[in-house]
Amino acid sequence: MSDAKAIVIDYMHHVWNDGEVDACDRFLTRTYTIHHDPGDPWDGQKLTIEAFKDRVSMSRAPFPNQQFVIDTMIEEGIKVAVAWHWMGTFVTDMPGFRATGQVVTTSGVTIYYMEGDRISGHWQVTDRLGVFQQVR
Amino acid sequence: MSDAKAIVIDYMHHVWNDGEVDACDRFLTRTYTIHHDPGDPWDGQKLTIEAFKDRVSMSRAPFPNQQFVIDTMIEEGIKVAVAWHWMGTFVTDMPGFRATGQVVTTSGVTIYYMEGDRISGHWQVTDRLGVFQQVR
Repeated sequence: MSDAKAIVIDYMHHVWNDGEVDACDRFLTRTYTIHHDPGDPWDGQKLTIEAFKDRVSMSRAPFPNQQFVIDTMIEEGIKVAVAWHWMGTFVTDMPGFRATGQVVTTSGVTIYYMEGDRISGHWQVTDRLGVFQQVR
Repeated sequence: MSDAKAIVIDYMHHVWNDGEVDACDRFLTRTYTIHHDPGDPWDGQKLTIEAFKDRVSMSRAPFPNQQFVIDTMIEEGIKVAVAWHWMGTFVTDMPGFRATGQVVTTSGVTIYYMEGDRISGHWQVTDRLGVFQQVR
Protein backbone atom coordinates (compact mmCIF):
# COMPACT_ATOMS: atom_id res chain seq x y z
CA MET A 1 0.00 0.00 0.00
CA SER A 2 1.21 3.53 -0.76
CA ASP A 3 2.11 5.99 1.98
CA ALA A 4 -0.78 8.27 0.99
CA LYS A 5 -3.35 5.46 1.25
CA ALA A 6 -1.97 4.39 4.62
CA ILE A 7 -2.15 8.00 5.87
CA VAL A 8 -5.77 8.37 4.72
CA ILE A 9 -6.76 5.07 6.36
CA ASP A 10 -5.09 6.11 9.64
CA TYR A 11 -6.70 9.56 9.49
CA MET A 12 -10.22 8.25 8.92
CA HIS A 13 -9.74 5.69 11.67
CA HIS A 14 -8.30 7.94 14.36
CA VAL A 15 -10.05 11.26 13.63
CA TRP A 16 -13.45 10.33 12.21
CA ASN A 17 -14.11 6.87 13.65
CA ASP A 18 -12.45 7.21 17.06
CA GLY A 19 -12.93 10.96 17.46
CA GLU A 20 -9.32 11.71 18.40
CA VAL A 21 -9.54 15.35 17.28
CA ASP A 22 -5.99 16.19 18.39
CA ALA A 23 -4.69 13.67 15.85
CA CYS A 24 -5.56 16.35 13.26
CA ASP A 25 -2.27 17.99 14.26
CA ARG A 26 -0.26 15.22 12.63
CA PHE A 27 -2.54 14.44 9.66
CA LEU A 28 -3.50 17.88 8.29
CA THR A 29 -1.74 20.86 6.74
CA ARG A 30 -2.03 24.17 8.62
CA THR A 31 -4.83 25.24 6.31
CA TYR A 32 -7.40 22.67 5.17
CA THR A 33 -9.59 23.44 2.14
CA ILE A 34 -13.08 22.00 1.70
CA HIS A 35 -13.22 22.24 -2.09
CA HIS A 36 -16.71 20.77 -2.45
CA ASP A 37 -18.99 19.14 0.10
CA PRO A 38 -22.67 19.97 -0.49
CA GLY A 39 -24.64 20.14 2.74
CA ASP A 40 -21.55 20.45 4.91
CA PRO A 41 -21.77 23.71 6.91
CA TRP A 42 -18.10 24.36 6.10
CA ASP A 43 -18.44 23.74 2.32
CA GLY A 44 -16.07 25.97 0.34
CA GLN A 45 -14.14 27.20 3.39
CA LYS A 46 -10.46 27.13 4.30
CA LEU A 47 -10.08 26.04 7.92
CA THR A 48 -7.28 26.29 10.45
CA ILE A 49 -6.52 23.05 12.26
CA GLU A 50 -8.35 24.38 15.33
CA ALA A 51 -11.46 25.21 13.26
CA PHE A 52 -11.22 21.77 11.67
CA LYS A 53 -11.18 20.13 15.11
CA ASP A 54 -14.43 21.98 15.92
CA ARG A 55 -15.89 20.67 12.64
CA VAL A 56 -14.99 17.10 13.62
CA SER A 57 -16.49 17.47 17.10
CA MET A 58 -19.71 19.08 15.84
CA SER A 59 -20.10 16.58 12.98
CA ARG A 60 -19.57 13.58 15.23
CA ALA A 61 -21.82 14.74 18.11
CA PRO A 62 -25.12 13.30 16.79
CA PHE A 63 -23.45 9.95 15.98
CA PRO A 64 -20.57 9.45 18.46
CA ASN A 65 -20.10 5.77 17.57
CA GLN A 66 -19.91 6.48 13.85
CA GLN A 67 -17.78 4.23 11.67
CA PHE A 68 -16.53 4.71 8.12
CA VAL A 69 -15.81 1.45 6.31
CA ILE A 70 -13.68 1.84 3.19
CA ASP A 71 -14.92 0.09 0.05
CA THR A 72 -12.14 1.05 -2.34
CA MET A 73 -9.30 3.55 -2.77
CA ILE A 74 -7.95 4.98 -6.02
CA GLU A 75 -4.75 7.03 -6.01
CA GLU A 76 -3.16 9.16 -8.71
CA GLY A 77 -0.70 11.99 -8.17
CA ILE A 78 -1.65 14.00 -5.09
CA LYS A 79 -5.22 12.67 -4.97
CA VAL A 80 -6.67 9.66 -3.16
CA ALA A 81 -10.33 8.84 -3.83
CA VAL A 82 -12.04 6.82 -1.10
CA ALA A 83 -15.43 5.16 -1.60
CA TRP A 84 -17.00 4.36 1.76
CA HIS A 85 -20.02 3.19 3.70
CA TRP A 86 -20.87 4.84 7.02
CA MET A 87 -23.04 3.97 9.99
CA GLY A 88 -23.78 5.61 13.32
CA THR A 89 -26.40 5.55 16.06
CA PHE A 90 -28.37 8.82 16.15
CA VAL A 91 -28.21 9.69 19.87
CA THR A 92 -27.96 13.52 20.00
CA ASP A 93 -30.40 15.94 18.34
CA MET A 94 -29.35 17.84 15.20
CA PRO A 95 -30.89 21.19 14.18
CA GLY A 96 -34.38 20.26 12.98
CA PHE A 97 -34.06 16.56 13.81
CA ARG A 98 -34.74 14.78 17.10
CA ALA A 99 -32.41 11.89 17.91
CA THR A 100 -34.07 8.55 17.11
CA GLY A 101 -31.71 6.16 18.89
CA GLN A 102 -31.64 4.21 15.63
CA VAL A 103 -28.67 3.22 13.47
CA VAL A 104 -28.36 5.41 10.36
CA THR A 105 -26.36 4.35 7.31
CA THR A 106 -25.12 6.15 4.22
CA SER A 107 -22.29 6.12 1.68
CA GLY A 108 -20.09 8.56 -0.18
CA VAL A 109 -16.87 9.27 -2.00
CA THR A 110 -14.17 11.58 -0.63
CA ILE A 111 -11.25 12.72 -2.76
CA TYR A 112 -8.39 13.69 -0.45
CA TYR A 113 -5.69 16.12 -1.62
CA MET A 114 -2.24 15.27 -0.26
CA GLU A 115 0.60 17.70 0.38
CA GLY A 116 3.59 15.51 1.21
CA ASP A 117 2.53 13.26 4.07
CA ARG A 118 -0.36 15.50 5.14
CA ILE A 119 -3.92 16.00 3.90
CA SER A 120 -4.63 19.53 2.65
CA GLY A 121 -8.31 19.27 1.67
CA HIS A 122 -11.09 17.25 0.11
CA TRP A 123 -13.85 17.12 -2.55
CA GLN A 124 -16.76 15.03 -1.30
CA VAL A 125 -20.26 13.88 -2.15
CA THR A 126 -22.37 11.86 0.26
CA ASP A 127 -25.82 10.33 -0.04
CA ARG A 128 -27.53 13.00 2.06
CA LEU A 129 -31.02 11.98 0.93
CA GLY A 130 -30.43 8.53 2.38
CA VAL A 131 -29.68 10.12 5.76
CA PHE A 132 -32.59 12.57 5.50
CA GLN A 133 -35.04 9.72 4.89
CA GLN A 134 -33.77 7.85 7.95
CA VAL A 135 -33.74 10.73 10.45
CA ARG A 136 -36.86 12.74 9.57
CA MET B 1 -4.30 11.46 -21.07
CA SER B 2 -4.68 7.72 -20.59
CA ASP B 3 -6.85 5.60 -22.88
CA ALA B 4 -9.21 4.82 -20.01
CA LYS B 5 -9.78 8.47 -19.15
CA ALA B 6 -10.37 9.32 -22.82
CA ILE B 7 -12.88 6.47 -23.11
CA VAL B 8 -14.77 7.63 -19.99
CA ILE B 9 -14.87 11.23 -21.25
CA ASP B 10 -16.19 10.09 -24.66
CA TYR B 11 -18.75 7.80 -23.03
CA MET B 12 -20.13 10.48 -20.71
CA HIS B 13 -20.26 12.95 -23.59
CA HIS B 14 -21.94 10.75 -26.19
CA VAL B 15 -24.18 8.54 -24.04
CA TRP B 16 -25.18 10.70 -21.06
CA ASN B 17 -24.86 14.26 -22.37
CA ASP B 18 -25.94 13.75 -26.00
CA GLY B 19 -28.24 10.77 -25.41
CA GLU B 20 -26.74 8.59 -28.17
CA VAL B 21 -27.92 5.35 -26.57
CA ASP B 22 -26.60 3.15 -29.39
CA ALA B 23 -23.08 4.34 -28.56
CA CYS B 24 -23.37 1.98 -25.56
CA ASP B 25 -22.53 -0.80 -28.04
CA ARG B 26 -18.96 0.42 -28.38
CA PHE B 27 -18.37 1.65 -24.81
CA LEU B 28 -19.77 -1.13 -22.60
CA THR B 29 -19.06 -4.78 -21.93
CA ARG B 30 -21.89 -7.23 -22.69
CA THR B 31 -22.88 -7.24 -19.04
CA TYR B 32 -22.71 -4.01 -17.04
CA THR B 33 -22.73 -4.17 -13.24
CA ILE B 34 -24.12 -1.38 -11.06
CA HIS B 35 -22.06 -2.14 -7.94
CA HIS B 36 -23.49 0.69 -5.83
CA ASP B 37 -25.76 3.59 -6.78
CA PRO B 38 -28.23 4.47 -4.00
CA GLY B 39 -31.52 5.75 -5.36
CA ASP B 40 -30.89 4.42 -8.85
CA PRO B 41 -33.74 2.02 -9.76
CA TRP B 42 -31.12 -0.38 -11.17
CA ASP B 43 -28.83 -0.30 -8.10
CA GLY B 44 -27.12 -3.67 -7.58
CA GLN B 45 -28.22 -5.12 -10.92
CA LYS B 46 -26.29 -6.64 -13.81
CA LEU B 47 -27.67 -5.26 -17.08
CA THR B 48 -27.43 -6.35 -20.69
CA ILE B 49 -26.49 -3.57 -23.09
CA GLU B 50 -30.14 -3.40 -24.22
CA ALA B 51 -31.35 -3.02 -20.63
CA PHE B 52 -28.67 -0.40 -20.07
CA LYS B 53 -29.93 1.57 -23.08
CA ASP B 54 -33.39 1.59 -21.50
CA ARG B 55 -31.82 2.89 -18.26
CA VAL B 56 -30.16 5.74 -20.16
CA SER B 57 -33.39 6.67 -21.96
CA MET B 58 -35.50 6.56 -18.81
CA SER B 59 -32.93 8.44 -16.72
CA ARG B 60 -32.51 11.20 -19.29
CA ALA B 61 -36.23 11.70 -20.06
CA PRO B 62 -36.97 14.25 -17.29
CA PHE B 63 -33.84 16.27 -18.20
CA PRO B 64 -33.18 15.79 -21.94
CA ASN B 65 -30.65 18.64 -22.13
CA GLN B 66 -28.64 17.32 -19.18
CA GLN B 67 -24.89 17.93 -19.08
CA PHE B 68 -22.20 16.35 -16.94
CA VAL B 69 -19.15 18.56 -16.46
CA ILE B 70 -16.07 16.73 -15.19
CA ASP B 71 -14.23 18.32 -12.26
CA THR B 72 -11.42 15.80 -11.86
CA MET B 73 -10.45 12.23 -12.79
CA ILE B 74 -8.29 9.83 -10.78
CA GLU B 75 -7.13 6.56 -12.34
CA GLU B 76 -5.47 3.53 -10.80
CA GLY B 77 -5.46 0.01 -12.21
CA ILE B 78 -8.85 -0.79 -13.74
CA LYS B 79 -10.67 2.04 -11.95
CA VAL B 80 -11.31 5.62 -13.03
CA ALA B 81 -12.95 7.92 -10.47
CA VAL B 82 -14.76 10.91 -11.96
CA ALA B 83 -15.94 13.85 -9.84
CA TRP B 84 -18.59 15.83 -11.69
CA HIS B 85 -21.19 18.55 -11.64
CA TRP B 86 -24.48 18.06 -13.48
CA MET B 87 -27.27 20.29 -14.69
CA GLY B 88 -30.49 19.76 -16.61
CA THR B 89 -33.82 21.48 -17.24
CA PHE B 90 -36.68 19.55 -15.60
CA VAL B 91 -39.20 19.33 -18.50
CA THR B 92 -40.86 15.90 -18.12
CA ASP B 93 -42.61 14.63 -14.95
CA MET B 94 -40.95 11.97 -12.80
CA PRO B 95 -42.91 9.60 -10.53
CA GLY B 96 -44.08 11.81 -7.67
CA PHE B 97 -42.64 15.03 -9.11
CA ARG B 98 -44.22 17.46 -11.62
CA ALA B 99 -41.83 19.03 -14.11
CA THR B 100 -40.92 22.57 -13.04
CA GLY B 101 -39.29 23.86 -16.23
CA GLN B 102 -36.40 25.00 -14.03
CA VAL B 103 -32.72 24.12 -14.24
CA VAL B 104 -31.69 21.57 -11.61
CA THR B 105 -28.06 21.08 -10.55
CA THR B 106 -26.25 18.43 -8.55
CA SER B 107 -22.86 16.73 -8.22
CA GLY B 108 -21.42 13.28 -7.66
CA VAL B 109 -18.56 10.87 -7.99
CA THR B 110 -18.63 7.85 -10.28
CA ILE B 111 -15.98 5.14 -10.14
CA TYR B 112 -15.90 3.34 -13.48
CA TYR B 113 -14.54 -0.19 -13.75
CA MET B 114 -12.69 -0.84 -17.02
CA GLU B 115 -12.31 -4.16 -18.80
CA GLY B 116 -9.80 -3.49 -21.57
CA ASP B 117 -11.16 -0.57 -23.58
CA ARG B 118 -14.72 -1.01 -22.34
CA ILE B 119 -16.57 -0.02 -19.19
CA SER B 120 -17.94 -2.95 -17.20
CA GLY B 121 -19.68 -1.21 -14.31
CA HIS B 122 -19.66 1.58 -11.76
CA TRP B 123 -19.84 2.54 -8.05
CA GLN B 124 -21.54 5.91 -7.66
CA VAL B 125 -22.84 8.38 -5.11
CA THR B 126 -24.74 11.53 -6.11
CA ASP B 127 -26.13 14.40 -4.08
CA ARG B 128 -29.73 13.20 -4.29
CA LEU B 129 -30.91 15.51 -1.51
CA GLY B 130 -29.79 18.49 -3.57
CA VAL B 131 -32.03 17.31 -6.43
CA PHE B 132 -34.92 16.47 -4.09
CA GLN B 133 -34.87 19.99 -2.62
CA GLN B 134 -34.98 21.55 -6.11
CA VAL B 135 -37.75 19.42 -7.63
CA ARG B 136 -40.25 18.97 -4.78
